[in-house]
Amino acid sequence: MKRALYPGTFDPITNGHLDILKKAARIFDEVILAVASITGKDTTFTVEERLELCRQATQGMANIRILSFDGLVVDCARKTGALAMIRGLRAISDFEYELSLAMMNKKLYGDLDTIFLVPDNKYLYLSSTIIKQVVYLNGNIPDLIPQCVEQALKKKNLQHNNDLEKK
Amino acid sequence: MKRALYPGTFDPITNGHLDILKKAARIFDEVILAVASITGKDTTFTVEERLELCRQATQGMANIRILSFDGLVVDCARKTGALAMIRGLRAISDFEYELSLAMMNKKLYGDLDTIFLVPDNKYLYLSSTIIKQVVYLNGNIPDLIPQCVEQALKKKNLQHNNDLEKK
Amino acid sequence: MKRALYPGTFDPITNGHLDILKKAARIFDEVILAVASITGKDTTFTVEERLELCRQATQGMANIRILSFDGLVVDCARKTGALAMIRGLRAISDFEYELSLAMMNKKLYGDLDTIFLVPDNKYLYLSSTIIKQVVYLNGNIPDLIPQCVEQALKKKNLQHNNDLEKK
Amino acid sequence: MKRALYPGTFDPITNGHLDILKKAARIFDEVILAVASITGKDTTFTVEERLELCRQATQGMANIRILSFDGLVVDCARKTGALAMIRGLRAISDFEYELSLAMMNKKLYGDLDTIFLVPDNKYLYLSSTIIKQVVYLNGNIPDLIPQCVEQALKKKNLQHNNDLEKK
Amino acid sequence: MKRALYPGTFDPITNGHLDILKKAARIFDEVILAVASITGKDTTFTVEERLELCRQATQGMANIRILSFDGLVVDCARKTGALAMIRGLRAISDFEYELSLAMMNKKLYGDLDTIFLVPDNKYLYLSSTIIKQVVYLNGNIPDLIPQCVEQALKKKNLQHNNDLEKK
Amino acid sequence: MKRALYPGTFDPITNGHLDILKKAARIFDEVILAVASITGKDTTFTVEERLELCRQATQGMANIRILSFDGLVVDCARKTGALAMIRGLRAISDFEYELSLAMMNKKLYGDLDTIFLVPDNKYLYLSSTIIKQVVYLNGNIPDLIPQCVEQALKKKNLQHNNDLEKK
Repeated sequence: MKRALYPGTFDPITNGHLDILKKAARIFDEVILAVASITGKDTTFTVEERLELCRQATQGMANIRILSFDGLVVDCARKTGALAMIRGLRAISDFEYELSLAMMNKKLYGDLDTIFLVPDNKYLYLSSTIIKQVVYLNGNIPDLIPQCVEQALKKKNLQHNNDLEKK
Repeated sequence: MKRALYPGTFDPITNGHLDILKKAARIFDEVILAVASITGKDTTFTVEERLELCRQATQGMANIRILSFDGLVVDCARKTGALAMIRGLRAISDFEYELSLAMMNKKLYGDLDTIFLVPDNKYLYLSSTIIKQVVYLNGNIPDLIPQCVEQALKKKNLQHNNDLEKK
Repeated sequence: MKRALYPGTFDPITNGHLDILKKAARIFDEVILAVASITGKDTTFTVEERLELCRQATQGMANIRILSFDGLVVDCARKTGALAMIRGLRAISDFEYELSLAMMNKKLYGDLDTIFLVPDNKYLYLSSTIIKQVVYLNGNIPDLIPQCVEQALKKKNLQHNNDLEKK
Repeated sequence: MKRALYPGTFDPITNGHLDILKKAARIFDEVILAVASITGKDTTFTVEERLELCRQATQGMANIRILSFDGLVVDCARKTGALAMIRGLRAISDFEYELSLAMMNKKLYGDLDTIFLVPDNKYLYLSSTIIKQVVYLNGNIPDLIPQCVEQALKKKNLQHNNDLEKK
Repeated sequence: MKRALYPGTFDPITNGHLDILKKAARIFDEVILAVASITGKDTTFTVEERLELCRQATQGMANIRILSFDGLVVDCARKTGALAMIRGLRAISDFEYELSLAMMNKKLYGDLDTIFLVPDNKYLYLSSTIIKQVVYLNGNIPDLIPQCVEQALKKKNLQHNNDLEKK
Repeated sequence: MKRALYPGTFDPITNGHLDILKKAARIFDEVILAVASITGKDTTFTVEERLELCRQATQGMANIRILSFDGLVVDCARKTGALAMIRGLRAISDFEYELSLAMMNKKLYGDLDTIFLVPDNKYLYLSSTIIKQVVYLNGNIPDLIPQCVEQALKKKNLQHNNDLEKK
């Protein structure tokens, strides 16, 4: 069974991620969407919330498994028996950072290759960060994120504003 | 009347920004320098201070208007009736980020095109951040910032050092 | 009257060029599409053919003028009284070359600024070269070039194949 | 059966290409090394020579097939039933060109995804062109090309020098 | 005496830094490794710890001097009589930032040129940040950092975990 | 004696090259300007003409030697006892190609390091090619090339035009 790991923060998952995931699922027998619990920076959603949004957004997709991991991504790959790691490429700046990660991971675990997939044109410059900025400033972008993510982001905003008012 | 929006943080405005502004003012009937009040990170100057420095630095320029905005830049463009948005390009890394913003803004407001202008050679690698670092470390760079900005930066530094001493 | 120059080889004109042209025509009172007769390399179409395809492809557009030029692009700008030069930006590699040209042109003619426009997503990675390769290898890409250009390219191919058979 | 296409000029095949090929062969059930006969530029080796060198260099590799193709790479993918196309990524400049190709190919044949693999560190900046330059100038680089390729390149050089002497 | 300055944060020093240092020491009569005490962000090690690790890692190297500096790097260069500044180049993104710094430094101190050196292949994508992430997540990478740095990093981790437990 | 090699085509030498040369001559005891006789493409000037222009342009510079070479640049470095190779960096696209060359040269001759120098701002986007285009189209750029080069380029143009008329 050929298995691939698709690791990330997914804070939150976007249609760009889902596009990569579908492409990977055509190539591999199983794709494991691995949500990092330790991210080194503050996340908008907790790891449980991120996992739940990934689950809702991938409903109906057959050969996908979702889990969270802490520690090195290569250890997660080793444990799950993944032979490759999936990464989405959006832009040049991504490319260099990804190349750097790929080399380090190859060094730490020689049996793991990184394969890069390119999202569709419309998702080329999409990132979780830009999505959150737009929603935070009350912009509307329904076709770039799953509906469940849109609702979750709006709820977060509301909560945030209420917290501010109480102070 | 052909109107353009030149949005930014301007924390503080530099001669590179002024160079772009002058170029834009030759092409459009009016250029609106729009200072973002919500920036997502700590600014050195408050939005009022940044507005005031912009006003002083652009004194005598005819077809310029200065205002501040919160919310999405496309909403500011819509309200002011701007048909294009001005962005200065300094370097490759800028280019990708700017392209990403341009695409998102186009998506949010189809009538708004982004036009990129390139500053003169001597401002190519200039940024507000590098200016602040140099002034903070007591370096002197009079020909890269307006005089009013230089004084304001030195005053900030002094204030900062006094605050430290009081502690 | 605010006039801009949009120079290029246009060998042949694509929908990406037309997209840039339309954007420029919203900003300026007149946009001059200037076809270079001296290009420094072999062109698929003669300058007359390239001009004719530009004319057909821009039919019905109001504030557009089409002409050919030899010599420096800045001399063409000076003669036509253009205050800015339009360039389309597609990718990073473009960006550097364009920056280099913009600086040289600014040096040769200080009154001419270069403004960069970004084509729509679907034209981001489009070039005349890739179009010609695909048509040459009998691929079909109707929505990336005007119909007149598609016909002209197919005719060129046919002619080319007949020439080969006669030998 | 999951099949991938690895198209290229392979003029000649290098250890960098072989590294990518091996990585692809771990992921897919079959990898088709597809040598382009029409390349749009002069090649050092004829398509037959390039095929033969590919055959010798891949001897003993199990799930590899070698063929040549003319026409569009997507037509070759369609005919062979490949669900993905393999591309090796070496550097940024590669990346943009490859992205452009990937988008055009996706447009021409929606069922074909491009997947990018990164060669080992030592092959990161390797290209057929730089190899040929070094051999042409009598340099020695045995561990970057298969032995059969080294011999073929030296023979070409010898032949070339004899031709020059006869004139 | 031809003297060069090699400034940085060195938080901590890696084998990539040492590789650059050795290359510089072949060219110059003396190379000053200058550790920045003011870095503008939190460091993992104090400036004294960073200096000590640099000293241990460079033991036995002849024409090296180690010092710390606060203030502008050009002032440090002026005081030490350095005629050039050494910078290691790893990747494109580095390149632009470094170019920007080089230009600003040249402006602040005209007698100081920046020279760029490229580390060996195996250190091309190495950074202090990625090293710290791997060690933090309990990965093992002995051949990318000096032994003294490895021990220091593990000790920091242990301390950090103990602090967490006490809370 | 610390000696560096500065190899190139120098077709023709520009003020950008001279700027790099002067910077290198401050660092090394001797800098060898090495003009490649085999360049793999047509040159505007013969190797003798290029050598002569280099000689005229560097008159009065003390620790410079000028020679031509065929074969590998590393062989030239070995013969002349150079311990480093100088390369000028102008732009990102340069950077990658240069990195590739540096790695190959290091592989071919382990004792040779490549050091990169950045030209002054005004030469950042200057190349021999763009200079020749401008002069060919009758543009004037006296401060970017030495006077002797300007005269030589104009003479070449005249000659070229006379040749055309005779046909």
